Amino acid sequence: MESWLPGSSGPAEVGPRLRGLRGADLAASACLLSGAGAEAGCSAPAVAAVLPAGGSGERMGVPTPKQFCPILERPLISYTLQALERVSWIKDIVVAVTGENMEAMKCIIQRYQHKGISLVESGVTRHRSIFNGLKALAEDQPNRRLSKPEVVIIHDAVRPFVEEDVLLKLVTAAKEHGAAGAIRPLVSTVISPSADGCLDHSLERARHRASEMPQAFLFDVIYEAYQQCSDYDLEFGTECLHLALKYCHIKAKLIEGSPDLWKVTYKRDLYAAESIIKERISQQICVVMDTKEDEEHVGHRLEEMLKNELNHVKVTSGRDLQQIILEECYNFVCVNVMTSDFEETQKLLNMLEESNLSILYPVVVISVQFLDYESEPSGQKMENLMRIREFAKEVKKTNILLYGLLVYYPQDERKLQESLRQGATIIAALIKERNSGLIGQLLVA
Amino acid sequence: MESWLPGSSGPAEVGPRLRGLRGADLAASACLLSGAGAEAGCSAPAVAAVLPAGGSGERMGVPTPKQFCPILERPLISYTLQALERVSWIKDIVVAVTGENMEAMKCIIQRYQHKGISLVESGVTRHRSIFNGLKALAEDQPNRRLSKPEVVIIHDAVRPFVEEDVLLKLVTAAKEHGAAGAIRPLVSTVISPSADGCLDHSLERARHRASEMPQAFLFDVIYEAYQQCSDYDLEFGTECLHLALKYCHIKAKLIEGSPDLWKVTYKRDLYAAESIIKERISQQICVVMDTKEDEEHVGHRLEEMLKNELNHVKVTSGRDLQQIILEECYNFVCVNVMTSDFEETQKLLNMLEESNLSILYPVVVISVQFLDYESEPSGQKMENLMRIREFAKEVKKTNILLYGLLVYYPQDERKLQESLRQGATIIAALIKERNSGLIGQLLVA
Repeated sequence: MESWLPGSSGPAEVGPRLRGLRGADLAASACLLSGAGAEAGCSAPAVAAVLPAGGSGERMGVPTPKQFCPILERPLISYTLQALERVSWIKDIVVAVTGENMEAMKCIIQRYQHKGISLVESGVTRHRSIFNGLKALAEDQPNRRLSKPEVVIIHDAVRPFVEEDVLLKLVTAAKEHGAAGAIRPLVSTVISPSADGCLDHSLERARHRASEMPQAFLFDVIYEAYQQCSDYDLEFGTECLHLALKYCHIKAKLIEGSPDLWKVTYKRDLYAAESIIKERISQQICVVMDTKEDEEHVGHRLEEMLKNELNHVKVTSGRDLQQIILEECYNFVCVNVMTSDFEETQKLLNMLEESNLSILYPVVVISVQFLDYESEPSGQKMENLMRIREFAKEVKKTNILLYGLLVYYPQDERKLQESLRQGATIIAALIKERNSGLIGQLLVA
Repeated sequence: MESWLPGSSGPAEVGPRLRGLRGADLAASACLLSGAGAEAGCSAPAVAAVLPAGGSGERMGVPTPKQFCPILERPLISYTLQALERVSWIKDIVVAVTGENMEAMKCIIQRYQHKGISLVESGVTRHRSIFNGLKALAEDQPNRRLSKPEVVIIHDAVRPFVEEDVLLKLVTAAKEHGAAGAIRPLVSTVISPSADGCLDHSLERARHRASEMPQAFLFDVIYEAYQQCSDYDLEFGTECLHLALKYCHIKAKLIEGSPDLWKVTYKRDLYAAESIIKERISQQICVVMDTKEDEEHVGHRLEEMLKNELNHVKVTSGRDLQQIILEECYNFVCVNVMTSDFEETQKLLNMLEESNLSILYPVVVISVQFLDYESEPSGQKMENLMRIREFAKEVKKTNILLYGLLVYYPQDERKLQESLRQGATIIAALIKERNSGLIGQLLVA
């Protein structure tokens, strides 16, 4: 068993980046429920998570195991780690990967700055991988580097959208019942085939549920179950709740989970996950402008248009950029009002590069220039504008997607409205698609 | 019961547009299997399909019922109808919709030129809707306008990717066994909860399957089952195979289906379906050029680059455009070599508009111009080029997405390669995303 901790000071520590805003509230609830002291960083119940990630992804029909398939150029498993990491009361996360993928996994942890992760080698089956993860946390193992938790969460590497509230419900229920698992209604009727490939009987859909992940257990319960269970269970079993029932007589509490808990299994699930992630990081647009006084400026009109046209999107003024970056806004419209080149945009780009905001998601920056409709832009000016291609190539290296937008403004009010509306449409399109093939382009509204 | 047939001459007729290329082969197999005459348009076994589409889509979390949710601006159910329509040996398709959605459904049939569709009013449950559909096909009903089929396929309106081969397997098995249904392996373990919300027992995953759609039945079997079955079955049942077993003692043959048979249930499934459809219509690019002689022309170099850079995409020369349109190519790169305006592009656009190719999917047209690197484009020329915005707005009305691409070509061979590679990247990005927000833009490589 290989065990490895990335060079962090402590596994429970929140990383240098903001890890979710609702964490404090929920951590407080966790403290109350555990009966321990209620200070924000409370240590009880000690919770760890085990993530089996040794699968080969054969159902996906792609050569890369599904947990390592890229979404917006970042491996799926990194999104799952991020979701668990954001939960301040999960102390340790133990990931079981094949020896073959150990180095790749270390690179992922380093590149995306994951904290509090330990790696163990996976077994040949899912149950064996989980058992290896549990051993890394158990007291009776030699050379252990982690402390035994009271409750352990078992989750899948390929369920990236797990939320803190369901984790808290499961941990709380596990403390009370010994085991708890997330369930979902069945989408299809389940049937039992006969030996000759015909229908034997069908199950009543309303009386059954799909068992999903995550699940949570009192550590002693599930560790005992794994120590007791047969080789047959370890080879052919799939259900941890079943082991707790069979070997420790613990009837797991079942908790209704959200649809987002679904398991990325097929190629279409990767598409769905990518769309969900793109949608989530497109909920806020920050408009940065170098003029604060001139409220009549067409830049402000554009901001208004964005607010009116893009429903469900929060449009904020970039008055306090540092704060907006901390709040994890991944979309910036930079209006260059006072200057005819990219001075304002460059200031923003520098700030973004320093912030490390783009480590986890590609950040979209749209640099807007306004041009009088009547006056033909000079060759010099156009050449200036075309420099955006070089900037774009440069900042792409740090995962920032830079596009240019030229908005013509005619005197005619109706036409100006139309120009601004088209500008808003283009901005929405660029943010929605986040397409790196179009960076450095100068679009025209 | 409202019954409505759009003004087509005959329901089994293949529409004005090409409906799948493998149809003839499979129809021939169907003939052989049925023991009937083997001419291409064979009439036995008479097969009809019933599509319950009365659902409210509550699981989707959106106000529109999921079968009417748009994918690339076309309702999901239209894709499912298209998939069934392409199968030449399915004579009639009966769709059950709510009275409320009857008019909308008629519009969909008309707008997307679906043929051989009959509408009936849905019931309050899925089983009642299917029963209504069967009644429209039965002999014992007054005023029936359709002929009774030997075999009836039951499918879901929200499973758009059904293929002819699985339909054929099911129909063949239904003829032999009386009933047949598509199945898939379970993705999650299925469990049975106790009354207090705890785990009672879990089912062995390997011994169970998910029952999917489509299913096929001897018409007399399933119609008999529906006539016999109880109100309780009609209200709370979900499984047609179960009715055939319970009331007609028919053990359905189970046929392994492909993952693409999955049911669009949640919002993420709509995202997945959109990505799959986009991927499918992006498999072929046709390069149209107005020079046949000058093989050295940079346009041909661009074509070569597309072939090298875009793996899995078939790049064809537009020598016989009519044929390529018939083969359902939805992506065109139009290189304007001899002219400095859009003459060639306009010829192509006219041809596309006449062909009706864009009725079912948005067609991408990228109009390419080459510009010498050294010579600044004249104001006149740029103005010419900007006319593409007007064209784009115009052809968008017929679902054609027009973009411009300006490729600078420097003398330096390495730089030229780079220019062409970037051109290929932009072309790939535009085709992949099919974003209507960026139409009329002049991109630069």
